[in-house]
Amino acid sequence: MVDILHKIRIHAPQEKVFESLTSQAGLAGWWTQDVKAQARLDAEIHFGFDAGKTVMRFRISELSPPDRVSWRCLDGDSQWKGTLIVFQLSQDGGSTVVHFAQQDWAQATSMFMHCNTKWAYFLLSLKSYCENGVGTPHPDDLKL
Amino acid sequence: MVDILHKIRIHAPQEKVFESLTSQAGLAGWWTQDVKAQARLDAEIHFGFDAGKTVMRFRISELSPPDRVSWRCLDGDSQWKGTLIVFQLSQDGGSTVVHFAQQDWAQATSMFMHCNTKWAYFLLSLKSYCENGVGTPHPDDLKL
Repeated sequence: MVDILHKIRIHAPQEKVFESLTSQAGLAGWWTQDVKAQARLDAEIHFGFDAGKTVMRFRISELSPPDRVSWRCLDGDSQWKGTLIVFQLSQDGGSTVVHFAQQDWAQATSMFMHCNTKWAYFLLSLKSYCENGVGTPHPDDLKL
Repeated sequence: MVDILHKIRIHAPQEKVFESLTSQAGLAGWWTQDVKAQARLDAEIHFGFDAGKTVMRFRISELSPPDRVSWRCLDGDSQWKGTLIVFQLSQDGGSTVVHFAQQDWAQATSMFMHCNTKWAYFLLSLKSYCENGVGTPHPDDLKL
């Protein structure tokens, strides 16, 4: 098993970052505009890509405001199915540090490498969205 | 041992990408402006950060134009020392695919997570430099 692991510093309050990771408007602002989400433990959340051709479904498996949220992937991509996405937040002075993980990939495939780079791209989008109000969510994302 | 692994597509000829990974002007265009490099097997190359407070030294351990270059880290950071950085290029239609690795980290520390995100940032800088002539090399990089 291998994990995607990132760390990024965001100059915004922890509550703002947490809200951006859990509300429909927040998630639409940095990951994908095609999202159905609610901030409730055990809720299903859906993220669409490529005009709905791909839909990633997750279940919210942890919801501990304003520190931690995690999602278990139910389906959408064979390599993503079963992986666990975790956002762990902490305050450091005036900024918020995000430790991100997508745990339990079966192998470090070329798709894993692509997704690792793309997660960094979307975390930079999250940073920009929280700091300036403007992210680069799909379908406006750079194709890598 | 854990590896940082990325993949990115660049809309530029493979020779242009390879030149950007091996020449002094190329490396200064996307990673750090403070660089001493030459494209010769076994040569030492130096990359400075934070006004010279940190200097990363590498030895070029593979140089196979236009497909592959690798550097072994000699010193500069205790967690980087001994790691191997590999850029593997391939042509795919009109674009170049870069598989990047920094191999043989002892552990997936918080520094590993930071560097993983930061490598993606600099690979996006490499992409922009090769495609548009403008990267975001240190010290003009975003602090993450």
